[in-house]
Amino acid sequence: MYCVIMAGGKGSRFWPRSRSALPKQLLDIFSDRTMLQETVQRIGGLVPAERIVIVTGREHAEAIYQQLPAIPRENILIEPIGRNTAPCICLAALWVEKKEPGAVMAVLPADHYIGNPQEFCRCLDSAADAAQQLEALVTIGITPRGPETGYGYIQYGQECGTYKGLAVYRVQQFHEKPALIKAREFLAQGNILWNSGMFIWKAATILEEIKSCLPEMYGTLAAVVPDLGTAQAQQAVDAAYQTIEGISIDYGVMEKSARAVILKGDFGWSDVGSWSAIYDISEKDAQENVVSGDVIAVDARGSLIYSPKKLTAIVGLDNIVVVETEDALLVCARDKAQEVKKVVDILEQQGKKKYL
Amino acid sequence: MYCVIMAGGKGSRFWPRSRSALPKQLLDIFSDRTMLQETVQRIGGLVPAERIVIVTGREHAEAIYQQLPAIPRENILIEPIGRNTAPCICLAALWVEKKEPGAVMAVLPADHYIGNPQEFCRCLDSAADAAQQLEALVTIGITPRGPETGYGYIQYGQECGTYKGLAVYRVQQFHEKPALIKAREFLAQGNILWNSGMFIWKAATILEEIKSCLPEMYGTLAAVVPDLGTAQAQQAVDAAYQTIEGISIDYGVMEKSARAVILKGDFGWSDVGSWSAIYDISEKDAQENVVSGDVIAVDARGSLIYSPKKLTAIVGLDNIVVVETEDALLVCARDKAQEVKKVVDILEQQGKKKYL
Repeated sequence: MYCVIMAGGKGSRFWPRSRSALPKQLLDIFSDRTMLQETVQRIGGLVPAERIVIVTGREHAEAIYQQLPAIPRENILIEPIGRNTAPCICLAALWVEKKEPGAVMAVLPADHYIGNPQEFCRCLDSAADAAQQLEALVTIGITPRGPETGYGYIQYGQECGTYKGLAVYRVQQFHEKPALIKAREFLAQGNILWNSGMFIWKAATILEEIKSCLPEMYGTLAAVVPDLGTAQAQQAVDAAYQTIEGISIDYGVMEKSARAVILKGDFGWSDVGSWSAIYDISEKDAQENVVSGDVIAVDARGSLIYSPKKLTAIVGLDNIVVVETEDALLVCARDKAQEVKKVVDILEQQGKKKYL
Repeated sequence: MYCVIMAGGKGSRFWPRSRSALPKQLLDIFSDRTMLQETVQRIGGLVPAERIVIVTGREHAEAIYQQLPAIPRENILIEPIGRNTAPCICLAALWVEKKEPGAVMAVLPADHYIGNPQEFCRCLDSAADAAQQLEALVTIGITPRGPETGYGYIQYGQECGTYKGLAVYRVQQFHEKPALIKAREFLAQGNILWNSGMFIWKAATILEEIKSCLPEMYGTLAAVVPDLGTAQAQQAVDAAYQTIEGISIDYGVMEKSARAVILKGDFGWSDVGSWSAIYDISEKDAQENVVSGDVIAVDARGSLIYSPKKLTAIVGLDNIVVVETEDALLVCARDKAQEVKKVVDILEQQGKKKYL
């Protein structure tokens, strides 16, 4: 199995820690390893370094070389501009298929949290088996923990077999991020899972489907294949991307394909969408605070305090997020953490590039 | 008139800006001048520099020399240890009476806010006239803005004349900081004022009263008089303070004296007791925030943000206090600002002297 790690995220929701030069996947959020390093480490038992492919933007390539010295540089594919997930996956699939025709590949975001890596690997292993045998597009779905509006939903139907102990189901329908009422309906209906954005398939299978659903994109990128692995590769990719339209693999392919199947993942997953998600996942102290640094909490509970370099006192406030960095400070209500994006928007409007 | 400025405060309620080496009166809180400098400047039209006396602790003397170069060094009296207001006032009165027998002196805290300095000076001028003519202990009382429990209260009786246009009343009773119920009773009764801690009297008058009410303290300090103004002065004062008991002028003298009178001051006074008081006094922006520094407020109102050196974003939180300094950060509910003292207590317990 190959593993393609999509590491192109911008991560403005983790400002002021995340910056354009240092998006979420390159930050050490849950341990002393970055999220990208954790992602690679997690699959280490299943996929050796030479079969790991990273797709990223030019501005992050150098940091990735530094963070992952064991991965061959030729495996780090650079997109000149972000064009959403379909071109990224198409390029990586072409790369894998050229390297080893008939290989199975997993597509994983670089910045997700997995509470139970062992169970995660078991799930990937089953998915690879299903992808091989069914020649299907295998998605990993997460049992919803509530009517979240920040995730896509997938309705599944009939079981189509058990692979290495895990049942695989036909996908009935993909749903984009719903309104709250719709999300509640989904949960009431049952047979519904969150879309984790993780996929397993034979490179050849997804390429067939891309060719069928997005023929223009497929043609442009397939033309690059002879250059892949040569000195001209980057130049060819750069040129190809100029004419490609951005589209997600879900919207562009998965929703249209008859070959989509799904497998339930139960491994403590989070896409870590905001500071609030980090609070939810992290271990709390006796006051239900998640603390990093020298913090004095007086009559203060339920907060995430990241202040590794400055003594910080919180007095009489509950459920807040405080993030203190070298040059910027965020103080935010925990349930408003998604609005941190607005701060980044304002900084952009004000032209304050050094904080972006 | 002489003016004695009491500048011995510790100011732990303004942590992390105030430190043991830099108490409130030495901080620039409302302008680019420190509160002590403002206090001196405010009375500049009434009292020349050579008639201003500052009483402070040894650890702050150097800072005061720096901040007030126009005031003769011999006018800066150093208490070796804080012993509350009575010894401080007694020493200063002895100094003034030696310098100019029969002089009137005003006693002012170094760290109060006065919104209308002109009216304040008019009030001092009236008080000086009353002090001279009545040979009384004149207190300035503030019309209560509500049933505050952080101030002493003074009940007044019959008018005993008008001095330079302002009425002066007999004091009936001093009350220490009351419980809320008691404070409400005071307001309902009427004829009640807050104790501002500002006094005007002839040095000779207060010395007579101290001699009568606190004869031991008076004796100890009066013995120092021959040394005042000589090279032995500090040594004599230091020795005298070793045996003096600490007591406030209110409790030790004012409450017992039959010569106390009061004059209503209406000049936008605050004793600036906490970060919350600074918020109350300061000018607000359109979101009712008081901001110092580069601050982005998203869905955030009613807060005091002091962060002169670090870009600070506040998201989805109202009525908080954020104070960012070189080495420490405070995030506090505005209505819990008085609990900042607890942070200082904890730092003391933890032996973290560098933050004190």
